Amino acid sequence: MAVYTGPVQDLVDELGKLPGIGPKSAQRIAFHLLKLPRDDAQRLASAITEAKARVSWCERCFNVASSTYCDICADERRDGSVICVVEEPRDVVAVEKTHEYRGRYHVLGGAMNPLEGIGADQLRMKELFARIGSEEITEVILCTNPNVEGEATAMYLARMLKDMPLTVSRIASGVPVGGDLEYADELTLGRALEGRRAVD
Amino acid sequence: MAVYTGPVQDLVDELGKLPGIGPKSAQRIAFHLLKLPRDDAQRLASAITEAKARVSWCERCFNVASSTYCDICADERRDGSVICVVEEPRDVVAVEKTHEYRGRYHVLGGAMNPLEGIGADQLRMKELFARIGSEEITEVILCTNPNVEGEATAMYLARMLKDMPLTVSRIASGVPVGGDLEYADELTLGRALEGRRAVD
Repeated sequence: MAVYTGPVQDLVDELGKLPGIGPKSAQRIAFHLLKLPRDDAQRLASAITEAKARVSWCERCFNVASSTYCDICADERRDGSVICVVEEPRDVVAVEKTHEYRGRYHVLGGAMNPLEGIGADQLRMKELFARIGSEEITEVILCTNPNVEGEATAMYLARMLKDMPLTVSRIASGVPVGGDLEYADELTLGRALEGRRAVD
Repeated sequence: MAVYTGPVQDLVDELGKLPGIGPKSAQRIAFHLLKLPRDDAQRLASAITEAKARVSWCERCFNVASSTYCDICADERRDGSVICVVEEPRDVVAVEKTHEYRGRYHVLGGAMNPLEGIGADQLRMKELFARIGSEEITEVILCTNPNVEGEATAMYLARMLKDMPLTVSRIASGVPVGGDLEYADELTLGRALEGRRAVD
């Protein structure tokens, strides 16, 4: 639309690239930012820059971290013998909110999706197998999303881990199938963790 | 939530302040930004900074502008005798999209809302009256939102402009009452402009 002048259109365009933000929302947010005192808008810009500069990935589990290890890997009180395998850092948050889990995590960085060219090599599976080889892991909980890609990823991992001397489990049904883990309520996700079954 | 480390939480907090962005969306957008290549995320941060630095308000109509006057006020082909009074710059965009209007605008910066302490003095009404005094205006179209605050603002302006030698009109019903102008489709808003009636 020719109605906007350059910098406003740029802002609308950039906002419109965010997930879940359509053109109308992008426009509404842009004008909201333009009306804000400059300091308030600048805080958002700085938060983005800061987060990109200071946040990196945990060297062990690939969760978000502000130093070498994430807060969970750095916490000596966590049970180092159990790994909960999730797709994304936001899934770590979802599991943490259940207060049902005291082990550590492994963030794959997505799920297998052949159509988008995401296979085992594009995910942090090699790193997971390396951890199982070097750390004293007794249980792996497959906590990928209960949708097609997440299930396929869990099944693939289950097959790969089958002959290793550890328990492999998949979170129980209880989480609504077809949805995203992130949107499950704490109780449902807690139940699912509690009722996990061994993969045969 | 203690799960996030500082800069991630800051980013989620700042995103959550945007209109229409709830905590879950804020989190999803934050992790999306963290996963993006740094340049892509930085483009959004820069767009905000740039827009705040370069975009100001038109000295005549208070639309967004990147120099003294906005593109519409600077366009000599626009009919300078008609003023369309709107609440926000995004409403200018909505009216422009109908291609039904060739006059100029006046952006009030909101609508009257006694509960939030927004009266005539908090809006750019004095500036509107000054324009009517100094420019050769023959018609004022009251194009505030068709909700309670917008209607009240239109009625207030109609009363104030009553004895002046100009036509004052209100956009016709046709725009759905109770909603926001910004969400009206082009056709409906075009009809409403076309069918405007004199305020008696």
